[in-house]
Amino acid sequence: MPITKTLTATLLLATLSAPAVAHEEEEEAGHSKAIDYRNSVMTVLKWNIGPMGKMVKGETPFDKAAFARHAKDLNAAAHLDLLPGFPEDSDEGEDTAARSDIWMEWEDFVEKYRTLKKAASELAETASSGGLEAIKPKFGAVGKACKSCHDAFKD
Amino acid sequence: MPITKTLTATLLLATLSAPAVAHEEEEEAGHSKAIDYRNSVMTVLKWNIGPMGKMVKGETPFDKAAFARHAKDLNAAAHLDLLPGFPEDSDEGEDTAARSDIWMEWEDFVEKYRTLKKAASELAETASSGGLEAIKPKFGAVGKACKSCHDAFKD
Repeated sequence: MPITKTLTATLLLATLSAPAVAHEEEEEAGHSKAIDYRNSVMTVLKWNIGPMGKMVKGETPFDKAAFARHAKDLNAAAHLDLLPGFPEDSDEGEDTAARSDIWMEWEDFVEKYRTLKKAASELAETASSGGLEAIKPKFGAVGKACKSCHDAFKD
Repeated sequence: MPITKTLTATLLLATLSAPAVAHEEEEEAGHSKAIDYRNSVMTVLKWNIGPMGKMVKGETPFDKAAFARHAKDLNAAAHLDLLPGFPEDSDEGEDTAARSDIWMEWEDFVEKYRTLKKAASELAETASSGGLEAIKPKFGAVGKACKSCHDAFKD
């Protein structure tokens, strides 16, 4: 290939790839923010599930007011708009354990999250009035919803 | 000191300091969890404030439904039980920018957080019905509440 043609091709490639690189960097920054957001929502969920789990298992005494507060906050966190925290193919990097299956089976993923919302809502309602025995199966349903989604979509 | 006395003293010291060390480790683990939790709540706040700010500044077009959703989630996150995320003297380590002033001026800290809750609640209410002009001062009040607390209590 003559030198001018090579030069033209190189310049053309540079012109074409500059926005492509910029786009890639922007996408990566967006994914990193989204991963941070969804991990934060999960941290808030765990912060509340932990002490409730201990009370349900009898590891700490049942404190009705504290339980109800945690159930309320779990429900609030579960109802945050989480799906924008999972932009397509944001399963790269050490900060996430998300599997690519999420985007291949998006409907199932959404459905599983809907199940958590429903379970969290029922737990909050029960915890605001009922005792530990009424709470136990509702808390179990929350745990089941977490596990079902993690088993399918989390490394 | 005779050897038996030294031995007794050493054993006594070991007995006394073992629980002290265990307590310290436990406290550190508790602080680390609390820091992770409060940082997560802040991340959720920022996740929602960011896009609203861009709309208010005209950097992105005003999308009423999107704004209302972010305002709703901001309000939900602001009403999470955040104070247990600030156990006394949990201002150590690179993961937190909290100042020790928080615990020296606890009432002021709590009051400032209450101001954020109120501002977030008013923003969510306005955003659910009003347009951008009605929203602007309410969003401004949220920003002011954030800044007032960060200025006083965040490095």
